[in-house]
Amino acid sequence: MPETFEVTKQNKVRQLREKANYDSETVHRILDAGIVAHVAFTQDGAPVVVPMIYGRDGNTIYLHGARKARVIRLLEQTTRACLNVTLLDGIVLARSAFNSSMNYRSVTIFGTPTLVEGNENKLHAMNLISEHSMPGRWDELRDSHDQEVKMTGVIALQIESASAKISAGKPDDDEADYEIPIWAGVLPVTTSVGMLEGDDRLLPGADPSDAVKSLQGRTL
Amino acid sequence: MPETFEVTKQNKVRQLREKANYDSETVHRILDAGIVAHVAFTQDGAPVVVPMIYGRDGNTIYLHGARKARVIRLLEQTTRACLNVTLLDGIVLARSAFNSSMNYRSVTIFGTPTLVEGNENKLHAMNLISEHSMPGRWDELRDSHDQEVKMTGVIALQIESASAKISAGKPDDDEADYEIPIWAGVLPVTTSVGMLEGDDRLLPGADPSDAVKSLQGRTL
Repeated sequence: MPETFEVTKQNKVRQLREKANYDSETVHRILDAGIVAHVAFTQDGAPVVVPMIYGRDGNTIYLHGARKARVIRLLEQTTRACLNVTLLDGIVLARSAFNSSMNYRSVTIFGTPTLVEGNENKLHAMNLISEHSMPGRWDELRDSHDQEVKMTGVIALQIESASAKISAGKPDDDEADYEIPIWAGVLPVTTSVGMLEGDDRLLPGADPSDAVKSLQGRTL
Repeated sequence: MPETFEVTKQNKVRQLREKANYDSETVHRILDAGIVAHVAFTQDGAPVVVPMIYGRDGNTIYLHGARKARVIRLLEQTTRACLNVTLLDGIVLARSAFNSSMNYRSVTIFGTPTLVEGNENKLHAMNLISEHSMPGRWDELRDSHDQEVKMTGVIALQIESASAKISAGKPDDDEADYEIPIWAGVLPVTTSVGMLEGDDRLLPGADPSDAVKSLQGRTL
């Protein structure tokens, strides 16, 4: 696994370069914090972007969907995909519109998607995708039926090129604007997991496990 | 403004069709609730996806960036773009991995991007983008300098085709799985705006306005 992704035309951050990171530790950390990725591919030459959950194993990102879904069929066929995960962390209210902005953690991945085949390989990926958003749940659930695995299309996206961009902190205003008597600062934005809400058909004694209970209150 | 977007090959929701909406009211409502859009376009035939903030005026979505930024230069040249806004609302822990899923509000837009030209048109769009994430702020700020407007690239994306997909509620398990004595339900996920944090260079008496104070505590 490379420690740092090579900076190429494809992944080079050109705006606000001081916020760019190319090391795999930062890229992985943002991927691991997010739940929803936006995956772009082309259909008949035109761009399409689809939100998907995902899992990660080193520099491989796993995606899934119905085997017959458009996104799976197109990712199976194409040689290029781009994936972005962005976590919004704040609204930066500067002293001018021009300097107002957002705080965020964002990662962009370029790679070649391939269809994952074979029950064992698919189950490995499905486990990672499940554990990414609901850690500890997979082992509590019944085994997947063969038909369920068959109906699931799994895509492996190898990270060939990546960049991370992190914006944090307070406004950075033009020096002259600090003379304007206006409030400026940050409004934090937080995405958090709430408290468990059981459904209406729980069997007596079917209490949440410790693993499930520990999912509550997480902040992405 | 069309009340319902025509269902075509491009925007047709094929999976979980019962969750699809094509009416402009639903499409606009989700766009208005989000802050970050993911915009896909092609560069040398390969897909690229970039997170951007946005504003909306009827069926026109406005995007902006540095005038010389790759995303602006490419959107200016291309005839096709796709934009998705997804708000994650919950993690659905079903009685099987197969039926586990997410709750979300998601909208996908297809359209032709065009560069917005002329100071007045650009300022109209920049106002809408600013007011989208920080309503009430624009009028409190100094006027934009001509150079700032010049340095800002503004793109108008006309909504030509759109679909919304909304997933809500509790797990929908296989009938046989309700006999398994395992907890199942939903973990709500909420994205919310916190409390104002002023920066270190506030002038005496530069208190937040009512408009700015009212941004606190919003839930997306």
